[in-house]
Amino acid sequence: MEKQKTLYAIEWTDDNQVRFLRQDLLPSMVEYTTTTDYTVLCKSIKDLWVRGAPIIGIAAAYATALAALHLGSSNYDYFKEQMQKTTAYINAARPTAKNLSYALGLMQGVIDNYKNVYDAQQALIKQAKQIAQDEENYCASISKNGAAVIPEGIAMTYCNAGPLACGGMGTALGIIAEAYKQRKIKGVIVNETRPLLQGSRITALELKNMGIPYRLITDNMAARIMHQGLVDSVVVGADRIAKNGDTANKIGTYSLAVLAKAHHIPFYVAAPSSTFDADVKSGEDIVIEERTPQEVMAFHGILTAPANTKVYNPAFDVTPADLITAIISEKGVFCPPYYF
Amino acid sequence: MEKQKTLYAIEWTDDNQVRFLRQDLLPSMVEYTTTTDYTVLCKSIKDLWVRGAPIIGIAAAYATALAALHLGSSNYDYFKEQMQKTTAYINAARPTAKNLSYALGLMQGVIDNYKNVYDAQQALIKQAKQIAQDEENYCASISKNGAAVIPEGIAMTYCNAGPLACGGMGTALGIIAEAYKQRKIKGVIVNETRPLLQGSRITALELKNMGIPYRLITDNMAARIMHQGLVDSVVVGADRIAKNGDTANKIGTYSLAVLAKAHHIPFYVAAPSSTFDADVKSGEDIVIEERTPQEVMAFHGILTAPANTKVYNPAFDVTPADLITAIISEKGVFCPPYYF
Repeated sequence: MEKQKTLYAIEWTDDNQVRFLRQDLLPSMVEYTTTTDYTVLCKSIKDLWVRGAPIIGIAAAYATALAALHLGSSNYDYFKEQMQKTTAYINAARPTAKNLSYALGLMQGVIDNYKNVYDAQQALIKQAKQIAQDEENYCASISKNGAAVIPEGIAMTYCNAGPLACGGMGTALGIIAEAYKQRKIKGVIVNETRPLLQGSRITALELKNMGIPYRLITDNMAARIMHQGLVDSVVVGADRIAKNGDTANKIGTYSLAVLAKAHHIPFYVAAPSSTFDADVKSGEDIVIEERTPQEVMAFHGILTAPANTKVYNPAFDVTPADLITAIISEKGVFCPPYYF
Repeated sequence: MEKQKTLYAIEWTDDNQVRFLRQDLLPSMVEYTTTTDYTVLCKSIKDLWVRGAPIIGIAAAYATALAALHLGSSNYDYFKEQMQKTTAYINAARPTAKNLSYALGLMQGVIDNYKNVYDAQQALIKQAKQIAQDEENYCASISKNGAAVIPEGIAMTYCNAGPLACGGMGTALGIIAEAYKQRKIKGVIVNETRPLLQGSRITALELKNMGIPYRLITDNMAARIMHQGLVDSVVVGADRIAKNGDTANKIGTYSLAVLAKAHHIPFYVAAPSSTFDADVKSGEDIVIEERTPQEVMAFHGILTAPANTKVYNPAFDVTPADLITAIISEKGVFCPPYYF
């Protein structure tokens, strides 16, 4: 139990390896994997062993540093050329979260600043650790900013935007934890978040470990519980926020936003600046990842639908800006109309 | 394959037994159980081996007939007294679907009409079979009535209101099948329906066997697919319809109704008269069954949430009448304001 309380998503170890938590195995198993192979880390991002927009950014930075360390040549031109290919490879791991390309952009800036391999390697490790540290700091600021505006009572959250998704104290869950400390939040409604159950598997575990009261529901119960007057706010994370405030987040977020509006419940998005994408005008231009039908059709290998069923499995949806009461970042609390 | 096409929910056999399909095992196993013990049938209703509002009504009637057959006394006063207790026991199997008490009311009427045990037994078997036959006929009428009003294109459905829930050709799924035959409906969006997945396990199977194209989604994807303009109507079944049109149906139905309204998509409820309850003024007076947390927290015995998680697990919700475009029964198509 005490051990679970110190769960962390990913770290760069003193001996230059990357250790990460197998989040796909939660809550029944707590297993950490250590690797020096950036392709293993990329596959772990693809397979959601490592997940959560900010953590994906950190993992991408660590993957870049690992690749740089093990390139096996001191020729800097070759190094730069190879790192360009590596960066493209890492960038392709998952398409929707902005944080991945944001982190890779910072890492590329480091490569461009150096003239020899060894110095670049050391600087890349330093930059990757800095990205992780920055995200932790962002979470702390987001939590304070959000706790100041979130209404008293019961907060509903979705998917997982806690420590294991964001580092630090999390974004949406950081706000909830801070507001709970301030005695504004009395408890949390957790949506299980189909198909991969990040809500029941991860958010519930984090809340349990933080000692914050919570109640788990299936996603289709949210409307009923809102109608019963048992929800005072909805707080979610984000994977990419367009210039106009349209927000991509885990599939089902849009549904909650529509339901929150129909029940006059404020709807908050919490995300660090690494999630904002000023190059994307609106949600229509955000690439939505579609994942394998198996996630919907089967559980632990047991089919829950007829074989060969045609499945639609978008991993994200887009919540239009006009359904979002406020967007909370480390820079402050933004209200509509949004213009990032 | 051919065998699956002749799936049926429940039947009274020539040798006075009840045979029913273990719907909890679908789609991976097709297993029929035969019993002469009405308590086995009651437990099967409780455990959702036998489910679907009209089928629950039929099963309750068969359970009454089984109990009458095996009472073991030719004393009619004793018979009547025991049957009263038996009826109360059967009635307690599940609280929300009206069909159960509706069927038991018809069976009680038969008991009251006879003066000796043997005649009552034979009449009860006949009445129970008649209830099954009536439901089949209702489904045929509902399907025609609904197909006449449902708009062309793609229909979304929820949970399971097909042959295995209703007998005959089903209610919501009967309308879809009839409209597909008429080339109005081109395909179906199936919501998986958490926690027990009646959509993916049963509706998908029935559509597959009927040769109607369908696409399976998790419940939290409905809003996105509506927003994309890919849904032309929503058609669902019902467990109890109040005098004012408020409708109890599988948990998540209310969510879909709110989402349908927000996306200007017509929302239809299909149900036989056995589901209507004129004694209940509005949805507020409908008893909503709450089921075990295990349904939400675990799948095939594998925990998907931390141990001791507090769960809210209502099996149904209430859709207010003003969100329902029309209620389709065997008697016709009713539009608001409803007054049953």
